[in-house]
Amino acid sequence: MKLYDYLPSGNSYKVRLLLSYLALEYDWVNLDIIAGETHTADYKSRNPVGQIPLLELSDGRTIAESNAILYFLAEGTPYWPSNVFDQAKCLQWMFFEQYKHEPSIAVARFIRTYYPQDRADELPALMSKGVQALDIMEAHLADNQWFVGGGPTIADIALYAYTHVAGEGGFTLSDYPNITIWLDRFSDHPRHIRITDIPS
Amino acid sequence: MKLYDYLPSGNSYKVRLLLSYLALEYDWVNLDIIAGETHTADYKSRNPVGQIPLLELSDGRTIAESNAILYFLAEGTPYWPSNVFDQAKCLQWMFFEQYKHEPSIAVARFIRTYYPQDRADELPALMSKGVQALDIMEAHLADNQWFVGGGPTIADIALYAYTHVAGEGGFTLSDYPNITIWLDRFSDHPRHIRITDIPS
Repeated sequence: MKLYDYLPSGNSYKVRLLLSYLALEYDWVNLDIIAGETHTADYKSRNPVGQIPLLELSDGRTIAESNAILYFLAEGTPYWPSNVFDQAKCLQWMFFEQYKHEPSIAVARFIRTYYPQDRADELPALMSKGVQALDIMEAHLADNQWFVGGGPTIADIALYAYTHVAGEGGFTLSDYPNITIWLDRFSDHPRHIRITDIPS
Repeated sequence: MKLYDYLPSGNSYKVRLLLSYLALEYDWVNLDIIAGETHTADYKSRNPVGQIPLLELSDGRTIAESNAILYFLAEGTPYWPSNVFDQAKCLQWMFFEQYKHEPSIAVARFIRTYYPQDRADELPALMSKGVQALDIMEAHLADNQWFVGGGPTIADIALYAYTHVAGEGGFTLSDYPNITIWLDRFSDHPRHIRITDIPS
């Protein structure tokens, strides 16, 4: 297996986390998305959308979209629930992540990191939407230790990736005590890795 | 089963389509999202995100996010593939739909329908992103009759919903011959329904 990646990407970090939790070996190809390395003809022949992460299997077949890759790796493991209702709830949170959470929190982090002056006018709307997403997570975690069922699933992995670096997007995680406790609970895993850890 | 819905919504139409294809009966609750009926305290107790569609089971449990509802209904039917790679490819296209396609094509349609003057300044960027999404679909359909495998899956249902009304968003579907043929192929189903058909 080969993972096309960009180290600071939370979307890619989701995949690295699950690969580590499952103790799976893989080849790691780091692409510089800022320098345009995901928009070359060669890369677009692998993923026409021009995004990372991309998982390439040993037979050359590929899977794009971070949360689809999580599903592919988690199916048949404890990170994907065994009953269809809980499976649907996992997907519910993962679609929430890609529709409400990532487009606000990850994009705010991206702008503050790379284009703090040029794209500053986009930040107020992103902050407002990101706070809404965090509020929904905080309310859910008031009554639940995990997003679905009694242990971590790929819904938690998907939501952890950009939540734990929400501070880099300008969000104040200390305002969210339930999220803070959940972040600690999630990262207390014997094979946890940090987003900055280069795969060996 | 009860479906909380808004008739013009493509996200809800996905669910109505699959319910019809599977010949499943359900109660239909139409909410006026423009009048704020999804933001009442009563509705938010069912779906804190305040969106339709929402599927409520006979025991009161709920599933939100259109594509998660599609998964719940399709699992165990021909609309969800039987092997994990094709399942992941279905999810890949469904996450593409919610990240790249719906936020541009559906939002452009929404603005042109309800706020053509007030939000006109948002349209150029949405049109550009929507064309990118349609280009990716068109290229895939040059070599494939369906998005995954040899027949329609929930990936096709998810992508059909807003693509077939892309003209209402200002997009020119006649520029996309492969998409046009696929739309005809998809709708040639004995239990096909239109987005404007009120469930009986």
